Amino acid sequence: MENVDHIVHARWLLPVVPRDTLLEEHSLALRDGRIVAIAPRPEMAGLFAAPAETTLAHQVLLPGLVNAHGHFAMTLLRGLADDHALMEWLQQHIWPAEARWVGEEFVRAGTRLAIAEMLASGTTCASDMYFFPDVVAATVIETGFRAQIAFPVMDHPSAWAAGAEEYLAKGLQVRDDYRGNPRLSFAFGPHAPYTNGDAMLARIAMLAAELDAPVQMHVHESAGEVRDAIAQHGSRPLARLAALGLLSPRFQAVHMTQVAPADLELLARERVQVIHCPSSNLKLAAGFCPVHALGGAGINVALGTDGAASNNTLDLFAELRLAALLAKGSSGDPTALSAHAALRMATLGGAEALGLADRIGSLEPGKDADMIAVDVRRLGCQPVYDVHSALVYTASGAAVSHAWIEGRELLAGGNAGALDPERLHADAALWRDRIAAR
Amino acid sequence: MENVDHIVHARWLLPVVPRDTLLEEHSLALRDGRIVAIAPRPEMAGLFAAPAETTLAHQVLLPGLVNAHGHFAMTLLRGLADDHALMEWLQQHIWPAEARWVGEEFVRAGTRLAIAEMLASGTTCASDMYFFPDVVAATVIETGFRAQIAFPVMDHPSAWAAGAEEYLAKGLQVRDDYRGNPRLSFAFGPHAPYTNGDAMLARIAMLAAELDAPVQMHVHESAGEVRDAIAQHGSRPLARLAALGLLSPRFQAVHMTQVAPADLELLARERVQVIHCPSSNLKLAAGFCPVHALGGAGINVALGTDGAASNNTLDLFAELRLAALLAKGSSGDPTALSAHAALRMATLGGAEALGLADRIGSLEPGKDADMIAVDVRRLGCQPVYDVHSALVYTASGAAVSHAWIEGRELLAGGNAGALDPERLHADAALWRDRIAAR
Repeated sequence: MENVDHIVHARWLLPVVPRDTLLEEHSLALRDGRIVAIAPRPEMAGLFAAPAETTLAHQVLLPGLVNAHGHFAMTLLRGLADDHALMEWLQQHIWPAEARWVGEEFVRAGTRLAIAEMLASGTTCASDMYFFPDVVAATVIETGFRAQIAFPVMDHPSAWAAGAEEYLAKGLQVRDDYRGNPRLSFAFGPHAPYTNGDAMLARIAMLAAELDAPVQMHVHESAGEVRDAIAQHGSRPLARLAALGLLSPRFQAVHMTQVAPADLELLARERVQVIHCPSSNLKLAAGFCPVHALGGAGINVALGTDGAASNNTLDLFAELRLAALLAKGSSGDPTALSAHAALRMATLGGAEALGLADRIGSLEPGKDADMIAVDVRRLGCQPVYDVHSALVYTASGAAVSHAWIEGRELLAGGNAGALDPERLHADAALWRDRIAAR
Repeated sequence: MENVDHIVHARWLLPVVPRDTLLEEHSLALRDGRIVAIAPRPEMAGLFAAPAETTLAHQVLLPGLVNAHGHFAMTLLRGLADDHALMEWLQQHIWPAEARWVGEEFVRAGTRLAIAEMLASGTTCASDMYFFPDVVAATVIETGFRAQIAFPVMDHPSAWAAGAEEYLAKGLQVRDDYRGNPRLSFAFGPHAPYTNGDAMLARIAMLAAELDAPVQMHVHESAGEVRDAIAQHGSRPLARLAALGLLSPRFQAVHMTQVAPADLELLARERVQVIHCPSSNLKLAAGFCPVHALGGAGINVALGTDGAASNNTLDLFAELRLAALLAKGSSGDPTALSAHAALRMATLGGAEALGLADRIGSLEPGKDADMIAVDVRRLGCQPVYDVHSALVYTASGAAVSHAWIEGRELLAGGNAGALDPERLHADAALWRDRIAAR
């Protein structure tokens, strides 16, 4: 008998790897935050002993979801100005609110709220792109969450930095300060092709290659962006980024609603990661990311909620359902993005996009125990013929009963100090009153 | 002081009429199942006395949602066969399962499950189109629910009727048997243009006009349907229905994903009701109903989930969010179908479509007290800048705390006998085992 820290028994276990596998009445043993073994329940009893066991009699145990694109602190701007045209929304509502209010306290409160919402709805790893990444890093550490922090770089000044040079210098400093923390990774976050000049983008390409670091960027979010770029640079944004040396498997292209044949070829050749944000793309009428065609070309696609100002929820189960439905509707093919494929996109696809697939994204011995339990007993999920279908088409974040990161159970109060609901509510009310009074 | 049966105090009250109104700290008095008055809380205290009061300290009180199109008993086929092409789905999975299993017991169990799911997620009135409408009617009565029953008429035989003549005769009999019940209304339900001949459709048009009864029908669900009809009849289905005398304000056209300029003109001229089912249309890759253009032409649009086999949830809050997002994405206009407009569509728009707007769909003195309370305290809804936005973009059926029909509180156990969760679970499991073993 081998000693482990914890054994979890599950009605269903959906490991994601091997593909399309569903195990019934299996158990998972973990030690030092990692998965040691997965086996049928009776077999496990003879192999491992643990001081703690958890029985999930009605739940599906699966890898925690990966939200590959977001702006955490924008939770505080959730619902501030909906149903507006994009430029009016940005110029008259979001940017003025950010210019007036964004600072360390805002980012701390908004990031805590985002992490609490994501954990409660089954996300155990997410990517952030926002100001004060130092505050975000500290908040991720204190809450037990796992994140990729894409520190922003752009020409526009903010409360955090005056221009691209300062963003870059400060971002690299935060990366240095937190390097080595197993739950944090850092990416360059040049905001978009149109907010950064060629020289800075070429420099980021060089630095990212030297440091073997990811780069996350909003690319081809709308037809207007592509049209303007052709007028200004004589080429589509993706082609310009390729010429500047930015494209690689470490490059995370967010949105990609405009994909011409030449774009598809570039994405496939450079093995770029695409991050699909269906709610945000619909809400801002940006366009449809052709996930079915991208998948067919062998391109990895991950899923993101975007910020809460343009979604407005960080519940990745809502995004999962929408992605599966929208892939069918926009391609005209009802077999596009099956429930199996959508679940892979929201777990291992996300881990691959963020360069973390060696540690998370599936339940396999040796990987970190980042996992969630989803209860499909709710009447709206019944009957269950196919667990994949039930998770994608009928579940929601509200059905998540447990979330573990590195084996630590966070939903049951493992981070109650940092994510005390009373304080989160009070902070949200405080910021709403300030911002609404503007 | 006037005596009433019940007073409800709400943090927010969203009456739908007058348009775009949100009342804070108001109270609603009801007697004999009807709304008597709405007033600011302090004012109400001096006017009415009631033996029972309910305080909704954190909730929004609004009209119960109206699900204008569904096939209740298909809850038992939820998730049976997802991610298939439409004809394969119908011919190899859904129709064989229905042919083998549909009967009185199936319809009773599936209808109870549907009503339990709808009530729990904020729907207080829904339309059904399925076999054994007599069983559906009895189940609606026993559960305290409110429904329009569109009894099916079509050429194809089923366990309930052998052909169109028998469907019609039996449907009219059920209508007679239950006429006068205030929570039931009946519509003719000729399934689709392609499953009914001209003679029967003309007869239904005449009968419906004589009885002043609604007609609900799947119309222009997909491009293929329109194409085939042109090949067979030489005209688009809607034009054929117009020629047969079916179009009127009592006609409910479900789906309408294919709307040519001539169709739009016909719908507007005949003041037809359109019922939009966004999840089902996406999932089956049927097309996009142009709700923004329909609204612009003055056509009333209601919202429906369709059956649970093609959605797979009956949570109208999910449909509400999707409708608001998809209207923007498919029209290219981020101001299309605002949160205010979407909420009106899911309440008063539904009531108008079903011909029930004199009794439900808004909170106004004299109307029936069909209403729900939604709790927006969940962290994923915080902060709340705009209650309409919070309800549409961040809430879900799981946030519904109360549901009343004719003033009777049903979620708190007012129908526990008919909708006992243990029995619903047992029945769902029983049918799943039977059907999966086929």
